[in-house]
Amino acid sequence: MKVPKAALVCVGSELLSGQVNTHQAWLSVRLRRAGFDLTGEASVPDDPKAIRAALKHALSEADVVIACGGLGPTFDDITREAACAALDRSLTFDPRLWKVIRARFARYRMSVPEENKRQAMRISGAEILANTAGSAPGQLLRARGRTMILLPGPPSEMYPMFEAVLPRLVRLHARRVHPASFSVRLSGVPESIADERLDAVRARWPEARFTILASGGEVSFHATVLSKSAASAGATRARLRADIMGAVGEFAHGEGDVTLEEALGKRLKERRRTLAVAESCTGGLLGSRVTSVAGSSSYFLGGIISYANAVKIRRLGVPARLLDRHGAVSAQCASAMARGVRRATGADIGVAVTGVAGPGGGTKKKPVGLVFLAVCGPQRAERTRRLEIHGPRATVRDRAVTAALRLTFDALGP
Amino acid sequence: MKVPKAALVCVGSELLSGQVNTHQAWLSVRLRRAGFDLTGEASVPDDPKAIRAALKHALSEADVVIACGGLGPTFDDITREAACAALDRSLTFDPRLWKVIRARFARYRMSVPEENKRQAMRISGAEILANTAGSAPGQLLRARGRTMILLPGPPSEMYPMFEAVLPRLVRLHARRVHPASFSVRLSGVPESIADERLDAVRARWPEARFTILASGGEVSFHATVLSKSAASAGATRARLRADIMGAVGEFAHGEGDVTLEEALGKRLKERRRTLAVAESCTGGLLGSRVTSVAGSSSYFLGGIISYANAVKIRRLGVPARLLDRHGAVSAQCASAMARGVRRATGADIGVAVTGVAGPGGGTKKKPVGLVFLAVCGPQRAERTRRLEIHGPRATVRDRAVTAALRLTFDALGP
Repeated sequence: MKVPKAALVCVGSELLSGQVNTHQAWLSVRLRRAGFDLTGEASVPDDPKAIRAALKHALSEADVVIACGGLGPTFDDITREAACAALDRSLTFDPRLWKVIRARFARYRMSVPEENKRQAMRISGAEILANTAGSAPGQLLRARGRTMILLPGPPSEMYPMFEAVLPRLVRLHARRVHPASFSVRLSGVPESIADERLDAVRARWPEARFTILASGGEVSFHATVLSKSAASAGATRARLRADIMGAVGEFAHGEGDVTLEEALGKRLKERRRTLAVAESCTGGLLGSRVTSVAGSSSYFLGGIISYANAVKIRRLGVPARLLDRHGAVSAQCASAMARGVRRATGADIGVAVTGVAGPGGGTKKKPVGLVFLAVCGPQRAERTRRLEIHGPRATVRDRAVTAALRLTFDALGP
Repeated sequence: MKVPKAALVCVGSELLSGQVNTHQAWLSVRLRRAGFDLTGEASVPDDPKAIRAALKHALSEADVVIACGGLGPTFDDITREAACAALDRSLTFDPRLWKVIRARFARYRMSVPEENKRQAMRISGAEILANTAGSAPGQLLRARGRTMILLPGPPSEMYPMFEAVLPRLVRLHARRVHPASFSVRLSGVPESIADERLDAVRARWPEARFTILASGGEVSFHATVLSKSAASAGATRARLRADIMGAVGEFAHGEGDVTLEEALGKRLKERRRTLAVAESCTGGLLGSRVTSVAGSSSYFLGGIISYANAVKIRRLGVPARLLDRHGAVSAQCASAMARGVRRATGADIGVAVTGVAGPGGGTKKKPVGLVFLAVCGPQRAERTRRLEIHGPRATVRDRAVTAALRLTFDALGP
């Protein structure tokens, strides 16, 4: 089966002067699941020739061309004009579109700047894509069996517009493609081990496309296989899922795009348990990850950041003689911290991290990257873990937090 | 004066399947400062035709082509072969290169897999760029007055190799360009206001190139102007700096790439003051930002994450009647938290954040995005601040933390 191709053109000089472009990562996963392959991306400055050339090249290579950015009201927003040049179309003022834009401004009790009239220019033959979060309308064009969509640059406007137009792209280009997709997120396992376990799965599904991505101690694995019919896609996905989960299920914290902190939050809620954190080398990063989840106040009580030893002693009740004997970077100290924060906050579960984040502070016996974790509770159960993490300070901290979240997730039982 | 152009080609199917590409943001700033303009970027999958086409296109447009990725040892690492095809060169095994690779493995007491031999293949006429952090050597090629460099994909290997080769690129292509660059980081000011203030600067330097980027409540501003000679570049930079600082100096926390948390750390060290944090809605993010700086243990003692009100009362000594009367999201509560954490840790300065991060939990009187900050000390001085932040949960938390860091920075005096 031929997989329809998509190509991305990102327009904006800021993308070539220091701004990180996250569009291609976001779009690629959604395109894959819908049955498309993202086969290329280009970033071009706000220059008419460069935009036109990139659009033409993309049209020569892909069934669907997605252009993001350059739909604003100012003089350097020229994607509309460049698309006209690439497709040999004309641009005309659309009074109905202008009315929509004016109505949007009126809703916010603002007067419409004259320059916003540029946003009411419609490419001949284009369908308008409504913008639910901003004033720049999108446009959809059909040409020689291909489709080009112009989307605004800001993610808050681009994301909903893309989600809304995706079913239409599928009807136009991927109707005979029946993707069966399964994604799973793993933690507590190195990427290399997960990858090795998944080798056999890949061998059994030669026609599938797989992606494995590792970041901060988590591994995300996507698989898409094309099914023969819409009817069989469900069964195909179930087989794919069973095969993948058979290989790496023990490391899975969730399916789809669920983060480890979301999975932990869900489990805490289900078990009606509360959590508190005690952090040394991570300095608050663990609490920050836990509370990045909306609604975390229903299970997270708080914590103690005990960066200095005096805080470990005074606020967590870690015995001074324990610190003298074993040092702050030790399983004993992690345990005492976990117990201490449980006591200090009244939480059902206390989790602690202590280690050497680096780059300084390492010794032969306690090198940079050595981290101890402890989870105390529910009831009096206790677990500790020793990690040796290689990498710069940020990597050590990120992976220590991921491991702590995973240890807590496991402590709550399956 | 003609500004030499650089084009970037990022190789790797993972870049088209969900991995965020940060190379172009990182490289563009460094290229600009060295006198180059990054005029385009393309991401291509591990496909020989696609890589070759992208390299050829880049060579037709730019003086310097930077290719990142695809230099690993496995079958899908084919950038070397694609570069040969694009430049009509051949690839030969280089025994000296192989010796270097074997020595690297020997240092780590590992045996060299046979497939790593691919990394000892040198393109005819190429200079080898040493890899200080991995086994993939880079290559530099000259062709028809242009330069192509092949760099490894992982940032930990690419960054040092690029820094090492940059002076050579300057000698080859930007010798007659004398960039005078000045970068400054601002906080405590909305991007729109900073932008407006810089309008006059832009008008006075019509030949300069400016970039303004806002992220998480910080604004970074880069300016590069080409000077007539190497001798005059220093004076030009001084004038550029004076002009920019005259416009936005009051908001600057540092020059170059210094982060707000680094600037705060530096000031705390200079003043010999210690810091502690009390966090509600940010759940540890403030502590995490403070401790992302290496060496922060010399001024950061720790903190209390008081997500639940009981923790505010028991661990920070916030009076229950204060919470009853004013609520947890109030200037009064922020003050009490800041005072409380100062007492609890013995720090010279306590800083507190409390607010409604959303998306739930907002009321008419206390909407989502309402945040109160307080700084207590040094001595008994106290400052509070009220913020109304628009945006999703992550935005509210990021900006609240940036504002808290800035408030503390200011409290330490100029």
